[in-house]
Amino acid sequence: MAVVGIDADDTLWHNETYFADAQATFVQILAPWTPEGEDVLALHDATERANLELFGYGIKGFTLSMVETAIEVSRGEVSTSAIAELIRLGKEMLAHPVELLEGVADAVEELGRTHRLVLVTKGDLIHQEQKIARSGLADRFERIEIVSEKDPATYRAILDRMDVSPEQFCMVGNSVKSDVLPVLELGGHAVHVPYAITWSHEVVADHDADAFPVLASLTELAAWLQAPQRSVT
Amino acid sequence: MAVVGIDADDTLWHNETYFADAQATFVQILAPWTPEGEDVLALHDATERANLELFGYGIKGFTLSMVETAIEVSRGEVSTSAIAELIRLGKEMLAHPVELLEGVADAVEELGRTHRLVLVTKGDLIHQEQKIARSGLADRFERIEIVSEKDPATYRAILDRMDVSPEQFCMVGNSVKSDVLPVLELGGHAVHVPYAITWSHEVVADHDADAFPVLASLTELAAWLQAPQRSVT
Repeated sequence: MAVVGIDADDTLWHNETYFADAQATFVQILAPWTPEGEDVLALHDATERANLELFGYGIKGFTLSMVETAIEVSRGEVSTSAIAELIRLGKEMLAHPVELLEGVADAVEELGRTHRLVLVTKGDLIHQEQKIARSGLADRFERIEIVSEKDPATYRAILDRMDVSPEQFCMVGNSVKSDVLPVLELGGHAVHVPYAITWSHEVVADHDADAFPVLASLTELAAWLQAPQRSVT
Repeated sequence: MAVVGIDADDTLWHNETYFADAQATFVQILAPWTPEGEDVLALHDATERANLELFGYGIKGFTLSMVETAIEVSRGEVSTSAIAELIRLGKEMLAHPVELLEGVADAVEELGRTHRLVLVTKGDLIHQEQKIARSGLADRFERIEIVSEKDPATYRAILDRMDVSPEQFCMVGNSVKSDVLPVLELGGHAVHVPYAITWSHEVVADHDADAFPVLASLTELAAWLQAPQRSVT
């Protein structure tokens, strides 16, 4: 393997836990206006899904969808101070410090000694750039690719820019849908490192358990890549 | 000149006029809650500026700033249906068709016959990608660079990736602040093609009128580049 691609959110640093925390706060803020039995999070999820094509991934779209959901759930009765709180919540998420997953800094350094590294992340351009800067890991990567969608075409373009064939590329990340399947489809390699929580929009239907390797942590990847049967360079 | 960089919003296609239209609608929506003598747009402008570091450029941040401003201007009295209207307004802007400036399609084709072309635009990743796709111009460019800020470091990174020196690069765009001055600072060339409206955040203090050339339209650029004193290739 010549090039290793590494996902960022929930692979290098915590992310989904902050969304889960924010959603819990969202439910609390809306509680006074939530009709008995109404599932606020299911509605927010549906709103986000409907807005995804226009808004793309990221916290600004998440926040706009919270405001929309708040008005809808409350039949327009929600207070403007609650809406202002939702916007503050979004801003807190954007300003949140980056917390690396355990062992990640050393793991990336180790991988960089034997492989060309590319960070591949999707989402909001400015927020991803800020998180990469705050992470202190930017210099470890030959390239940083912030993309709007992780599909086979996106990966193909990245591999072309790096002048590497799919057989020489291994992607690692927490999302089967975004980090694993599209790379396998191209004929590349992929390793799944699950995170504690998976965003509902990233959940894929059942897949063959043997279709790709699963590691418990990024810290195991260097050894996995060095295993004799893997060093096809 | 080996490489020509071209800005997108208000250089290839109309943009600022839609913001101006949206702002007029915003003022109307808020009118029932606007105290006598309050300047809604000045407040929105200040809110946007304060949010710029967290939100970056683009319509989602613009929309969130409208909601914040609406709550502030109305002292919390604005109706939730007005807030829902503001979000709809933001979505309409995101879904707006791309309207090329007159002559731009031919001008880009002509420039591409003699120069390597790179599109350099800042803003929201997914929205810029969608506009580029809708414009039908994507194939005319060797590279498309969507960036979060147009400063000298950004331009230097683009020139490095294209393996071209500043003296061999000419940027053209409607913003003196983003398209002209940072490129001149690097030692590159730049041409200003003003648009009818300039976003307040892009206005720069007085600059030397002779510091850079100004053309009335992108359609004049090819001839300008061919002028004998310019063909330093």
